[in-house]
Amino acid sequence: MPDHPLSGGSRHPVRVISRSDIAALAAGCAVFGTGGGGAVHTERLAVEAAIDEYGPVGVVSVGELTDDDAAIVLSGIGAPSVGIEMLGAVGQAESIVREVEEIIERRVTAVMAAEIGGSNGVAPVRWAAELGLKVLDADGMGRAFPEATMIAMNVAGLPSPFAVMSDVVGNVSVLRTVDLGWLERHARAITVASGAISLGAHYVMTKRNAPGAVVEGTVSRAIQVGHRLLRCGPGSAARRGTVDPVDELVDELGGGRIISGKIIDVERNTEAGFTRGSVTVEGVGDDRGRLARVEIQNENLVVLEDGEVLASVPDLVSIVDSETGEAISTELLRFGQRVSVIAWACDPLWRTRRGLELAGPAAFGYDLPYVPFVAREPAR
Amino acid sequence: MPDHPLSGGSRHPVRVISRSDIAALAAGCAVFGTGGGGAVHTERLAVEAAIDEYGPVGVVSVGELTDDDAAIVLSGIGAPSVGIEMLGAVGQAESIVREVEEIIERRVTAVMAAEIGGSNGVAPVRWAAELGLKVLDADGMGRAFPEATMIAMNVAGLPSPFAVMSDVVGNVSVLRTVDLGWLERHARAITVASGAISLGAHYVMTKRNAPGAVVEGTVSRAIQVGHRLLRCGPGSAARRGTVDPVDELVDELGGGRIISGKIIDVERNTEAGFTRGSVTVEGVGDDRGRLARVEIQNENLVVLEDGEVLASVPDLVSIVDSETGEAISTELLRFGQRVSVIAWACDPLWRTRRGLELAGPAAFGYDLPYVPFVAREPAR
Repeated sequence: MPDHPLSGGSRHPVRVISRSDIAALAAGCAVFGTGGGGAVHTERLAVEAAIDEYGPVGVVSVGELTDDDAAIVLSGIGAPSVGIEMLGAVGQAESIVREVEEIIERRVTAVMAAEIGGSNGVAPVRWAAELGLKVLDADGMGRAFPEATMIAMNVAGLPSPFAVMSDVVGNVSVLRTVDLGWLERHARAITVASGAISLGAHYVMTKRNAPGAVVEGTVSRAIQVGHRLLRCGPGSAARRGTVDPVDELVDELGGGRIISGKIIDVERNTEAGFTRGSVTVEGVGDDRGRLARVEIQNENLVVLEDGEVLASVPDLVSIVDSETGEAISTELLRFGQRVSVIAWACDPLWRTRRGLELAGPAAFGYDLPYVPFVAREPAR
Repeated sequence: MPDHPLSGGSRHPVRVISRSDIAALAAGCAVFGTGGGGAVHTERLAVEAAIDEYGPVGVVSVGELTDDDAAIVLSGIGAPSVGIEMLGAVGQAESIVREVEEIIERRVTAVMAAEIGGSNGVAPVRWAAELGLKVLDADGMGRAFPEATMIAMNVAGLPSPFAVMSDVVGNVSVLRTVDLGWLERHARAITVASGAISLGAHYVMTKRNAPGAVVEGTVSRAIQVGHRLLRCGPGSAARRGTVDPVDELVDELGGGRIISGKIIDVERNTEAGFTRGSVTVEGVGDDRGRLARVEIQNENLVVLEDGEVLASVPDLVSIVDSETGEAISTELLRFGQRVSVIAWACDPLWRTRRGLELAGPAAFGYDLPYVPFVAREPAR
């Protein structure tokens, strides 16, 4: 597999995703989810069940795509809080594939995650297993983001002539919007009308349009990060006190630990199809006396301390369990949890002018300049 | 033209709609609009301009449809209050026609109004003129109703496999919903996201499926009612005091006058894409001392006096100007207006069990039995 300029990729490409990879994929996707993209736990069980039934799923890299390949870009849309309680129906992905094939007049051969973060990074493996398709080792964000406009294909200027949505009831919609902003508005309106959760596909990725327009290697990368984290799990060296899972994770990601402490306040509302709020962490141990606030809109967006920005979108911020390093999704944050807030650099595409325009602090309504995150102390 | 069992029809079919028919069509559609379907004034001007530019529009009856004909069923969706200020864009109907042709793989040759009432009964003539199509002399309601489920094709059990919507921005959506209830929900959600007004098409009417599944002859009928009303206009006998336009109208419709008086209260809100409220009329002249309330949800639904139902959906209730007989749409009702409330029988299809299930008082949330409207005193 060739080197590529995108940081999201992995030097150790996965060729086949088998049952034993799913726990790692879920743990990695939770980390890249930065709190959003949906909690991974229920989706992990559904993917494992699908692989038990249909067998392992083949992975194809962007460089391996042939002229016959067409990958649809799938993602769950809506409020993650609802997603926990409502798994997608089997027919949902199938009806989207059939509708897309009707429109593009060719076969769909693979699925790509719109975002590698959260359950949206895990679920494509289930859909691929159920539909007999491959998974493309790439995604549209290298993380999770709440809006349809915030996607690598949009940064690259790729047109999205249509989107197809489906819900658990069996309703299917084809949206031909003038731009992604209108797609976001219409897709979210339909999602709210469908009960706050739906499945959507937009963009068809091919050998021709994918290179340079997606974040490559991120499926392999999520599995790799997940395996490193799981090695710190029960029975491992970490459990015997020799390894700190949060240090391991920060090292793997090349990021930094911002604060370790206790959650003393969680504000969270589900409004207009979004989960919005903030969480406050009070430092413990070395961080005693410090207080950091993480602003949330489905994802963790900005970390503030005494009015100073410690990290912000498009860089990645995860809130992880201080004991296990496991990332905690927005809707599962609770008062009293012992957590560490960590951050690391986003894919370079998000630091371009167009990338920041689409997903910098201002795109989320913050009047803050973007300051690229740099770890203050070397990890470990 | 053969007789048919539906009361909405006309024994004097119109073959071509020319500029001089538009004022009559608008006046007639306002009457059948029962307050809803959008105010006809701005749409009337737009249709006249279209006929000036593209020429008269041919009318085809259901009985004249050939194997090559396919009529799309068009209607504006959303809050009438917004519709007054926002005329549909030329491209809106065209993009719907192109999308439908793509789906059904044949040419669209005609348009049919989903509802003959209000601007939705007038606008199809503009779309037909602009697109070079014919108008089908029929509609889906014989009046106006606020919801997608309340349509003759649904009473007849015709499936609606897809709907196509477009907005003034240029966004196009194809909705394949499991039923009309879901279509209503999704179409309204998209409409609200588009700014509270959009254009939609569902059902494709053909020689095979139209007979018995539409209300025939209603375009001719609206023009006929309109011409009768306009003959009472300025300079006419009515203006010289020999004819009462409200009596003329009631006679033409075979209906009854419920009360004549003054509007003393108007309650009106735009919520979730609907105009909801009520209007209270205090009797004058022979009706002095009486007080009637008309309940509204886009259309005039129920007339109550001292807790007694004087008329209700699916029968038709119009509030007309007492001087001119001109019907006043919901969003133009004002305190102090001198009005008459008139009612007449709906098309027989709405009095069937299935018709009442879909559009009787209970369908609108009223705990009232349906009592077919009968004029208490012979008109004139």
